[in-house]
Amino acid sequence: MASSFHGGSLIAGKHLPPTAGGFTVFSPITLEDLPGEFFPASAEDVENAMTAARDAFRTFRTSSGEIRAGFLEAIAENLTTMRDILLERARLETGLPIPRLQSELDRTTGHLRMFAAIARDGSWLDLRHEPPLPDRKPSPRPDLKRVFRPIGPVVVFGSSNFPLAYSVAGGDTASALATGNPVVVKAHEAHPGTSELVAGAINAAVTEAGLPAGVFSMLQGSGKELGIPLVTHPATRAVGFTGSTHVGRIFIDAAAKRPDPIPVFAEMGSLNPVVILPSALDGDPEHIARLLASSITTDAGQFCTKPGIILVPDGSKSRHFLDLISAEVASIRPVPMLHRGIHSAFVEGSGKLRALSSVSVIACKEATPDSLEGSIQILRTDAESFLAESLLRQEYFGPLSIFVTWSGLGQIQHILHVLGGQLTATLFTADNDPEAVELIPLLEETAGRVILNGVPTGVEVNSAIQHGGPWPACSDSRFSAVGPSALLRFVRPVAYQNFPAGLLPDFNG
Amino acid sequence: MASSFHGGSLIAGKHLPPTAGGFTVFSPITLEDLPGEFFPASAEDVENAMTAARDAFRTFRTSSGEIRAGFLEAIAENLTTMRDILLERARLETGLPIPRLQSELDRTTGHLRMFAAIARDGSWLDLRHEPPLPDRKPSPRPDLKRVFRPIGPVVVFGSSNFPLAYSVAGGDTASALATGNPVVVKAHEAHPGTSELVAGAINAAVTEAGLPAGVFSMLQGSGKELGIPLVTHPATRAVGFTGSTHVGRIFIDAAAKRPDPIPVFAEMGSLNPVVILPSALDGDPEHIARLLASSITTDAGQFCTKPGIILVPDGSKSRHFLDLISAEVASIRPVPMLHRGIHSAFVEGSGKLRALSSVSVIACKEATPDSLEGSIQILRTDAESFLAESLLRQEYFGPLSIFVTWSGLGQIQHILHVLGGQLTATLFTADNDPEAVELIPLLEETAGRVILNGVPTGVEVNSAIQHGGPWPACSDSRFSAVGPSALLRFVRPVAYQNFPAGLLPDFNG
Repeated sequence: MASSFHGGSLIAGKHLPPTAGGFTVFSPITLEDLPGEFFPASAEDVENAMTAARDAFRTFRTSSGEIRAGFLEAIAENLTTMRDILLERARLETGLPIPRLQSELDRTTGHLRMFAAIARDGSWLDLRHEPPLPDRKPSPRPDLKRVFRPIGPVVVFGSSNFPLAYSVAGGDTASALATGNPVVVKAHEAHPGTSELVAGAINAAVTEAGLPAGVFSMLQGSGKELGIPLVTHPATRAVGFTGSTHVGRIFIDAAAKRPDPIPVFAEMGSLNPVVILPSALDGDPEHIARLLASSITTDAGQFCTKPGIILVPDGSKSRHFLDLISAEVASIRPVPMLHRGIHSAFVEGSGKLRALSSVSVIACKEATPDSLEGSIQILRTDAESFLAESLLRQEYFGPLSIFVTWSGLGQIQHILHVLGGQLTATLFTADNDPEAVELIPLLEETAGRVILNGVPTGVEVNSAIQHGGPWPACSDSRFSAVGPSALLRFVRPVAYQNFPAGLLPDFNG
Repeated sequence: MASSFHGGSLIAGKHLPPTAGGFTVFSPITLEDLPGEFFPASAEDVENAMTAARDAFRTFRTSSGEIRAGFLEAIAENLTTMRDILLERARLETGLPIPRLQSELDRTTGHLRMFAAIARDGSWLDLRHEPPLPDRKPSPRPDLKRVFRPIGPVVVFGSSNFPLAYSVAGGDTASALATGNPVVVKAHEAHPGTSELVAGAINAAVTEAGLPAGVFSMLQGSGKELGIPLVTHPATRAVGFTGSTHVGRIFIDAAAKRPDPIPVFAEMGSLNPVVILPSALDGDPEHIARLLASSITTDAGQFCTKPGIILVPDGSKSRHFLDLISAEVASIRPVPMLHRGIHSAFVEGSGKLRALSSVSVIACKEATPDSLEGSIQILRTDAESFLAESLLRQEYFGPLSIFVTWSGLGQIQHILHVLGGQLTATLFTADNDPEAVELIPLLEETAGRVILNGVPTGVEVNSAIQHGGPWPACSDSRFSAVGPSALLRFVRPVAYQNFPAGLLPDFNG
C-alpha cells in the first residue's frame, strides 16, 4: 500500500515529489507505523498554492452554478467509488470504526450534494430587487439589485476528529467551492493518507468539470509550520478552522494583525453544559443516564459537542442518578483515541483532574495497557469547587465528564456565566417546570444550540441547525459551520445600481 | 439657548452634572463659539453606562416586538416634534444647510420606522423549522427551530458628516435597538448639542415604552479618551463605527486583542473610483460632467461615497470633458465644512497634493478667506504618476477629486488593484460596449456597490442596498451599514432542539 501514496502535497493538480522531512502515521489500531510516507509542504508551496488559487478565482467566480453543482457531485461520486480503500485507511489512521466512518462519508457526500443543489438553483444569491421609481421627488429612485458574490481563496484547516466531514472535502470546503471560492486545505497530520485520497477525488472532479487546477490544493504538513504563512498570505480571503482554542486564537490573532484583516471562522473548544432539573429525575432517570453515558463515551468522546459538564441537583436523587450512570458505563468498553497527541494530552489532563482533592471518581473503565484507548472517566465535584478551580472548567477531549452538584438556580447561573460561550447547552426537565422557564434564557445566552431532553452530540445538517456559539466556543457566533448557512461565511453582498439586463453580470447561480 | 443644554452625558436616563474640562462648539457658520457648554464623560461614566446596558439587556431581549416597534416610532415622533430646534442647532454645529438636514431627518425617522416595522412583524427572526422525523433510521431526526436573537450591548460612535442619520439615532442605533440590543452612543464632539437633543428624544421614548433606562445611554467627549474604554469594556458585544481608517483600525485592533474578541463594524475611507469609457464621452458628456461636479461638491464633498478618483481616457475627448467639468464647477460656490479639524486637514492635504509636480489643477473655486469653507478643487494626473505617488491614493474628505488619465484597460485594472476595497465603484459607458463587460467583474471585486451611468452619492435605504465594501473601506464586507440587513450585524442564530411550544421562548418578534 505504501507505493500507492504520492506522499507530497497536491498543488493545483500536481503532486509534489518527495522531499526531506518525510513523516509516517502511527496507527491507534495496529500500534505500528502505517505504510506510506508523507512530505511536508514548504513556504514556497504555500506561495504556489495561494497564487494558483488567486488566479483560478477569476475564472471560478464566474463559472455557472451548473458547473459548480456538477463539480461537487463528481467529488461525492469519486469518494463513493473509493469507499472501501478510503474507509479502511481512515480506520487505520484514526482508530474510528467502519460504521462511524461510513456514516461520516454519507454525511460528507450528503453535504456535497446539498451544496451542489444550492449552487444549481442559485438560492444562495439571495437576490433582492428594488425597482426604479423615476418619478420620485425630490430625486428619482435608481434600480437596485443585490446578490451574494464569492470572496476569493479560502484556507481550510482539516480537523483531527472528523477525517472526512471536517477535513479535505468537509463542510468548509464544500460551502466555499459551491459559491465559487477556490480552496487550499491544510490536511491534518494525523490522517495524511485519508487526506491524499480525498484530495485525489476532488482533483479528478476539477479536471472532469473543466475548471482551472488552482481551484483546489491540499498541503501536507504541520499547522505549526504552515498555519501562519497560510493565514497571512495576501491572497487568502478567509479561513475555516476546527481545533483547539489555543491554536484557533493564534490564527485569529495573526489574521487580525494583517494589513488587511480577514475573518477566521474558528470552531474551538466547548464544554457543552447539561443542566438536569430535579423534575427530570422524577421522570425516567434510567433513560437520561443511558443517553448521557453514550454521548460521553461514543467514539472515545472525541466530539466538539460531547457533554463535558453535567449539572445535577444536590441530594439523594442525584446520588441515585450517578449510580445509574455508573451502571451504564460498566457495559461500555474503552476504544482507541485518534492519535498519540490526543491520547497523551487526555491521559495527562485527566490525571491532573483526578488528583484534585475536590474531585471524586464515580466510574472509571481503564484502557488496555500500552494501547491508545481512552479510559472512560465519570467524575464528580460540587459547584463551589467547580467555580474555584480552573482545571475543572477546561475541555478534556475524550471520554470524560464532570458531574457538578448544584443547589439553587443562582449557582447554575453563576456557573454558566463563568463558562462563557458554548456550542450547545442542554436542559433535562419535566413539562411545565417553572425552573426550566427561568433557565432557558440563560442557556440561550450561552450557546448557539439549546437542547431539551436530549444530548448535544449528533449534529443535524439542515437549514434549522446552528453550529457555532459565542466566544470562546467560536470566533464569530453570527455564522454556522454546519448546514446551508455555512456558505454565508464565504460570500458578501454586492449591489448593482442602474444595471440594464444586458450589462448585469450573469450571476450563474 | 445655553441654559437649554444639560451639557453632561445621559446615562441610563440621568443627565450627569457639569464637571471640569467643559468644551464648546465653534460654528462653521457664525465662526464663533456656540452657546452651550458640554462635559466629557469619565472612565467611571463608561463603566456605569455599560453596566446599565448589560443589566437592561436581560429585560430588553425578551421585550415584545410590539414594544420595540412602539419605542422606535416614539423616537421618530419625538424627533419630528423637536424638528425646528434640532435642525437649527445642527445647522449651526455642522454648517450643513437646512434642506439637507431636513432630508437627513426624514431619512432618520424613515429608518426608525422601517426597523419598527421589522421589529413588529418579526421578519428579522428568520425562523427556520425542520420538523422531527421520529422514524428515521438509524436515528430519529429531532425537531429544530432556528431564529435570530440579539447579542447584547452595542457601542455606537457617531459620525461627523451625518449628525442625524449616522449619529445618536442613526442606522447603527436603530438596527441594534430594533432587535433588542441596548445601545451606548459616543456622541461626536463636533455636534454635542444636536446629540443631546436626539438623546433626549430617545430617552423620552424609553420612558414612554416602559423599558429599563439602561437600554440607552449617550456619552459626550472625545473618541481618543472614551474609545478604547468603550471598545474593551467586558459588557460590549459589538461596535458600530463610521469615521477614518486610522481611528477605525485602532478600535478594530483593540477589539481583536480582547480576551473575548468582538466585532467592530467600521465604515472607513473610500475613494469611490469612477471609470469613464470613451463610449460614454461619445454620448452626453455635458450630462456626465454635471452629475460628477455636483456629486464632488455637494455639502462640501463630505460624503463617504464622494467620487474621489475619476479615471478618464487619455486624449482629446477627455480634454474636452475636463473643460466641461471646469465649466460646471464655475457656477458652484464653496460652502462651509463640518468643523475646524476637517477643514484644516483638507487645507493641509489638498495643499500637499497641489504641490506635487505630477498634479495639475483643472479648476479651483477658492473659499472665502478666514472662513471654514472648503475650496473646490478639480485636479488631474496620469496613471503612471497615480500608481507611483501614494499621496494621490489617499482620501481627501472635501470638495476635491482627482481625474486620472488612462490608456488601456490594463491600467484601469492595475489602478483598481492598488486602490483596494471600496464602498462603491462606478462605470460610465454606452450600451453594448465590450470594454464595459470586461470591466464590470473588476469593479464588482473592488466594491460593495457598482453603479452604472450614475454617481455614487445618494445612498438608498432599502433591501437591495449594500453599503459596505472590502477592506480598507470596511472592516467586514459581509455586512451593510444601511438598509434592513444592517440588523444582521447585531444578531446571532440560535437553534432550539426538541422544544415543545410550551417551553419555546416567546420570541416576540
